[in-house]
Amino acid sequence: MLAPSEKAFVPFVSVDHMMQLINHTGLAAMMQGICDQIEADFRRWPLFDKTPRVASHSDVGVIELMPTSDGDVYGFKYVNGHPGNMAGGLQTVTAFGLLSDVATGYPVLFSEMTILTALRTAATSALAARVLAPKGSTVMAMIGNGAQSEFQSIAMQAIVGIKEVRLFDIDPAATAKCARNLEGSGLKVVSCSTAEEAILGAQIITTCTADKQYATILTDNMVGAGVHINAIGGDCPGKTELAPAILNRAEIFVEYPEQTRIEGEIQQLDADHPVTEFWEVLTGAAQGRKDAKQITLFDSVGFAIEDFSALCYVRDAIKGTEFFTPLDMVADPDDPRDLFGMVARAK
Amino acid sequence: MLAPSEKAFVPFVSVDHMMQLINHTGLAAMMQGICDQIEADFRRWPLFDKTPRVASHSDVGVIELMPTSDGDVYGFKYVNGHPGNMAGGLQTVTAFGLLSDVATGYPVLFSEMTILTALRTAATSALAARVLAPKGSTVMAMIGNGAQSEFQSIAMQAIVGIKEVRLFDIDPAATAKCARNLEGSGLKVVSCSTAEEAILGAQIITTCTADKQYATILTDNMVGAGVHINAIGGDCPGKTELAPAILNRAEIFVEYPEQTRIEGEIQQLDADHPVTEFWEVLTGAAQGRKDAKQITLFDSVGFAIEDFSALCYVRDAIKGTEFFTPLDMVADPDDPRDLFGMVARAK
Repeated sequence: MLAPSEKAFVPFVSVDHMMQLINHTGLAAMMQGICDQIEADFRRWPLFDKTPRVASHSDVGVIELMPTSDGDVYGFKYVNGHPGNMAGGLQTVTAFGLLSDVATGYPVLFSEMTILTALRTAATSALAARVLAPKGSTVMAMIGNGAQSEFQSIAMQAIVGIKEVRLFDIDPAATAKCARNLEGSGLKVVSCSTAEEAILGAQIITTCTADKQYATILTDNMVGAGVHINAIGGDCPGKTELAPAILNRAEIFVEYPEQTRIEGEIQQLDADHPVTEFWEVLTGAAQGRKDAKQITLFDSVGFAIEDFSALCYVRDAIKGTEFFTPLDMVADPDDPRDLFGMVARAK
Repeated sequence: MLAPSEKAFVPFVSVDHMMQLINHTGLAAMMQGICDQIEADFRRWPLFDKTPRVASHSDVGVIELMPTSDGDVYGFKYVNGHPGNMAGGLQTVTAFGLLSDVATGYPVLFSEMTILTALRTAATSALAARVLAPKGSTVMAMIGNGAQSEFQSIAMQAIVGIKEVRLFDIDPAATAKCARNLEGSGLKVVSCSTAEEAILGAQIITTCTADKQYATILTDNMVGAGVHINAIGGDCPGKTELAPAILNRAEIFVEYPEQTRIEGEIQQLDADHPVTEFWEVLTGAAQGRKDAKQITLFDSVGFAIEDFSALCYVRDAIKGTEFFTPLDMVADPDDPRDLFGMVARAK
């Protein structure tokens, strides 16, 4: 057998490597780094090749491909969403992703993204809250205490500066798990028995529940003036979390309107309801929060550029470390036209 | 560190494993097996979730994602096409692919597909030729002697029964490489110095060249009555190989018209030019070759279902073998809601 050439090897970051990278870097520092990368990429938003995700729906879930490119680097993520998985002891969402070189098409990074997606989602939420939430926000209500909840809390602490998180979930065991995991984080953690209790005194309300239906996690009378709502659980057609009346009172910020109108909270509104693209707030092309009484809503469904940014962060972060293995996934014969000869000589 | 559970591991077939699998199975036998799988899947064509590939074009090439699903299994392929790569010692086309379980979204196979794509392309060509070429075809002209040419020749030998292959390439070194690789195959190999010489006496003409332009590999007067043309090189917008006059004389068979009209030879024709979907010939819903004098043209651009079939073949073929390694690519905490705890405990 001939040894494959160096070009044949793609750095692969396994689940175990990703956990090592996070624990080596520190979760808060890594989310800050990903947040910086997302901000830098959002600021050059028009450069990116953008398309709504390519979804394959079944009656139990969805499998999606989310590609994008900045002209130099191409990236995509594979991600599924299966609300019924949890009952079988499986993750609702699993993901992996890849970066490749636009000039050659050769992959340059292959990585687990189940964990990385949680980090990039929390980093994106925190970036939006840093820009849109009332100045000096210190309290967040976290409605839905599943797999994303601790990441959201730590990102809001690291990037926005919140001091207190108020937890609520219809399943008290989920709240207990989240509270246990946040022990020692420096956050004041208050476990609540109703959503109403959770939002008391909160300047930021994050909703992240997993029901695949039109749910009403927040009703109109629960949301007072001046709060920032970070709605991340409504992320596919037929799945929303907020009462439409809240949407009508709020200034709505989105990632990519073409995708959010299909998947986000605003699928409940007319197709021409005005929304602001969040990247334009970062560049100064659009206004963010107008005054202290305004309700701002980040209707986040997750966009390919965030995954791209997170993968670019990982690509750079693993350089010189042992947090990857080279994967023999590209056939690379000495003579590129002699694929057949390479196979034959491998005998 | 906790050991990942079994669900976290996805069988990965590396380039080296793929070569071992081919050499263990035998190239001809493996292409026959893939051909059988493609035929079985084409016969249940309406079941599949079909979409034109999702392409990201740059001025030097294209990167594509090709997803499909039969409702039980989801599959996709990543593939690039960079004609300039060869000059830099790289493959024009590299690929990898994945199968997952529609019920859970969890991956079940991750595989190199640079080599596998060559096998499935040749198996598809041979399936079409077996059905459409004149009965008793024994001679194939192979125009373009690059990475695909030997696979095409062996597949046509194994599946159609050709005895002689007549090679031509504008680069004599490519022809010499192909001829050398086919020594000992049992095929009579004739190296030709012109395309005209190559097609002498051929019942099947395969064109597989790599120029990204409107080229004319075959002119109208070169193609006589009764031949079967297997056109596989024209596979993206702006890239064709046949003179339009040939298309107007031929009965044209395609994989998926929505994609072929964008990428295939028929991009040169009106959008309503009649074509036959090849799968309908297999099921008997449409007629194949009508008489011995007809020119049949398989305008093949490659479709996601062929990759799906090839991946399903590999998934089954590696069972009980050592031709794969388990890849830790799915995060799988004991409590699916406790992704954070899994990361924290990995410290």
